[in-house]
Amino acid sequence: MSVPGCTMVIFGGTGDLAHRKLAPAIYNLHLEGRLPSDFSLVGIGRKQKSDSQYRQELAASISKYSSSTWDEKQWQTLALKIHYHAGDMRYAENYLPFKNAVEACNIESGGNGNYLYYMALAPHLFTPIAENLKLHNMTAGESGWRRIMIEKPFGYDLSSARKLNNTLSAVFDEENIYRIDHYLGKEMLQNILVIRFANTIFEPLWNKRFIDHVQISARESDGIGDRGRYYDRVGAMRDMFQSHLLQMLALMAMEPPLKADPDTIRTEKLKLLNAVHLWPEEESKSNLIFGQYYGYMQEKDVAAYSQTETYIALKLAVNNSRWQGVPFYLQTGKKLEDKLVKIVIQFKSPPSFYFGDPLEGVYKERSDLINLLTLKVQPREGVVFQFNIKKPAAIEEVVPAEMDFCQPCAFMINTPEAYELLLLDVMNGDQTRFSSWNEIESSWILTDSIYSQHRKSLGNFDIYEAGSMGPESAADMLIRDGRHWW
Amino acid sequence: MSVPGCTMVIFGGTGDLAHRKLAPAIYNLHLEGRLPSDFSLVGIGRKQKSDSQYRQELAASISKYSSSTWDEKQWQTLALKIHYHAGDMRYAENYLPFKNAVEACNIESGGNGNYLYYMALAPHLFTPIAENLKLHNMTAGESGWRRIMIEKPFGYDLSSARKLNNTLSAVFDEENIYRIDHYLGKEMLQNILVIRFANTIFEPLWNKRFIDHVQISARESDGIGDRGRYYDRVGAMRDMFQSHLLQMLALMAMEPPLKADPDTIRTEKLKLLNAVHLWPEEESKSNLIFGQYYGYMQEKDVAAYSQTETYIALKLAVNNSRWQGVPFYLQTGKKLEDKLVKIVIQFKSPPSFYFGDPLEGVYKERSDLINLLTLKVQPREGVVFQFNIKKPAAIEEVVPAEMDFCQPCAFMINTPEAYELLLLDVMNGDQTRFSSWNEIESSWILTDSIYSQHRKSLGNFDIYEAGSMGPESAADMLIRDGRHWW
Repeated sequence: MSVPGCTMVIFGGTGDLAHRKLAPAIYNLHLEGRLPSDFSLVGIGRKQKSDSQYRQELAASISKYSSSTWDEKQWQTLALKIHYHAGDMRYAENYLPFKNAVEACNIESGGNGNYLYYMALAPHLFTPIAENLKLHNMTAGESGWRRIMIEKPFGYDLSSARKLNNTLSAVFDEENIYRIDHYLGKEMLQNILVIRFANTIFEPLWNKRFIDHVQISARESDGIGDRGRYYDRVGAMRDMFQSHLLQMLALMAMEPPLKADPDTIRTEKLKLLNAVHLWPEEESKSNLIFGQYYGYMQEKDVAAYSQTETYIALKLAVNNSRWQGVPFYLQTGKKLEDKLVKIVIQFKSPPSFYFGDPLEGVYKERSDLINLLTLKVQPREGVVFQFNIKKPAAIEEVVPAEMDFCQPCAFMINTPEAYELLLLDVMNGDQTRFSSWNEIESSWILTDSIYSQHRKSLGNFDIYEAGSMGPESAADMLIRDGRHWW
Repeated sequence: MSVPGCTMVIFGGTGDLAHRKLAPAIYNLHLEGRLPSDFSLVGIGRKQKSDSQYRQELAASISKYSSSTWDEKQWQTLALKIHYHAGDMRYAENYLPFKNAVEACNIESGGNGNYLYYMALAPHLFTPIAENLKLHNMTAGESGWRRIMIEKPFGYDLSSARKLNNTLSAVFDEENIYRIDHYLGKEMLQNILVIRFANTIFEPLWNKRFIDHVQISARESDGIGDRGRYYDRVGAMRDMFQSHLLQMLALMAMEPPLKADPDTIRTEKLKLLNAVHLWPEEESKSNLIFGQYYGYMQEKDVAAYSQTETYIALKLAVNNSRWQGVPFYLQTGKKLEDKLVKIVIQFKSPPSFYFGDPLEGVYKERSDLINLLTLKVQPREGVVFQFNIKKPAAIEEVVPAEMDFCQPCAFMINTPEAYELLLLDVMNGDQTRFSSWNEIESSWILTDSIYSQHRKSLGNFDIYEAGSMGPESAADMLIRDGRHWW
């Protein structure tokens, strides 16, 4: 695999994302021999500091956050490719020295002429930076490519996302804009389509005839830490639902793509997202739960009477022929009892004709005979299938059994971090694991409509204890359907 | 569970089966508290010996062959219920003392009036014993039941089986004749119907639309040991195919029964067996392999120019709507490299539209994308599902993965021996795990027709090396279909 190198410019080079995710990912790629030799990195920040000071700071973070062990010799080779440039990039007057610095860096590393701009800073800075890059002829050149990576959330709502997209589109072609949803870099998300379409046993069952309902959960035990300023503005809906949860839903539920090509897959995901709606309410029983953990308003940088949700649970419908009548229950939240991300597919139960009164089979399912397929995304990737067998030594009793596939156990290798794959993807020009503008637009339309539904119900919150399973109303939402969260 | 007790009379009480299987099974049931308190045992043999001598001999065998550890105190309780009676039971004059002995024994153990006759001796003795039991009014009584258990093979071919059945039917009602196929007592065989019908995920796939072919293997690494006299007369067809292999096939392939009741299930198995045929030959390529291991003719008690098969492999068709066009490959043999009994279901491969050239999908399957469901019968019971996932860290590569359910691992208990269940079944009057006469008749019709096919091809044998995978022709039979033994 020959990946073209580039000069990667991190706006926000001294920030949290650069330290916790980007630098460790680059270090891992370097260790694995997957980083192109003509790669270089320029971290941008407002404070003055020397290259060597910046390198030392990154080294400290890498040894803390990388999944690999520290290798001083390897680091010394990589460190030479890392530079720092100080400047407030909102302002045009700072761009000439900046341009000179990154060009020098590119020439030093081989002069491939490729530039990757990584927006690892607050969203309100995206627009001025993009415009200044254009103004200083840094968004196109005679040779090489210019690509931009943007962290989610892409916008704050539909209208701000559209505005941001208009700005970026004026500066970069769509094919050079990489909108990150780092969940798309996770192994199990990439696996969903393979599991669905490379297995005869699953493909025919993947529809309303055989699936009772689907659950998508992204549960965190941590609170918001010192990210109050960011989190209090976005909440669970914008932080998790609009991006990660909807992408998981889209991959799980979309129609088969004609081929495994980025545009084809994104088109199918878009079609799916366009078909998603909040499940209609019946007898004023809500299909939308907003929760906030007790004590959230006392967190650092959170408003005293914050109306931000730290937990949501929703019952969604996918209005197409494949999924008519099948509920999709989604939940995500912070300060919960457990920490996991997974998709659970509950298949319909078999009729009771065989395992009980033959007459009952006419109208009844054996609802205790459950088949579950669980796609584990985090913390350990894997697939678990719960099925039913005869209880050993018993004649008639049927009991559940599990078959478990643990990916890291089976392959004896560390699953690569999402950011490693995503950085290589951008250098390769592969958009498969990034969201298209149309998908983002569609997911904001849905997200905005859910907020508006929430406001109609007077913005009620259910407070839940930190370390609990979440608001009781979220459990009740499934219980009244005769189901429960797995 | 309150099981009615009985006096169990073992004809052949000093033989191999009594020592290796029956006595250990009774001991295990006793240890587990599942043996009724009003149970007693009378072993019959020709040699004179005292009760205490017989008990000592059984104790030695139990401590050698039982899966449980030896418990002297428990054995002492059980031993009191065990008696011995000497006599050549071919002759009517020996029946009066015999009758007195077993009646005394029944009265001593509570007098429930139930008698279970176990035929643990050579088949030619079944008829005289059955007729003498009738003659001496031991096959029906004013109270209690009289049941007979017969070891397989039931007859030697269709005509001898019919003759034997006529004799038994003149003496016992069909409901009191228990024809043993001890495979039906194995956990995984009992599990087949549960796995098929208690799991929504399997039931819809269980037909020609989704299944490519089925393999049923019963492979043994042992030779014939000192059973040459028996084995050389029956061979692999009568020893394994006519009974065990066909029962596995019937359970795997039968239509759903209306309810889990013995007659209903046996009727469905019979329908299935009636639909089984040897796959028609194409261009004189045989679908029937008879093999004999090198050195078999030198084994003890084997004829010098023996034409007995120690290995068979067949390609069968099930002529019904569910299985039209789906081959069932069966094999069994002795002195092979490995030792296992399993059913492997290979599902069809997905079209290649998604994982390759979209146009190829029109006419081609991705034949490397395999889905296998393996039902392991022996040595370790379990279910394994092989499916396909994305290779970790790779973008497009698809690799196989396995989910494994190991029954003894999951339940932390020893799976009960087949004979334990079968003895309890007979005391309970449950015929589910026994073969009906109609099933046996049907399987002999098929078996005889295969022998006649074999004779038509001049009785050719393929000699194979001891410790090998079997005759090469058996591998070739699948290879020419583009398949291979799993």
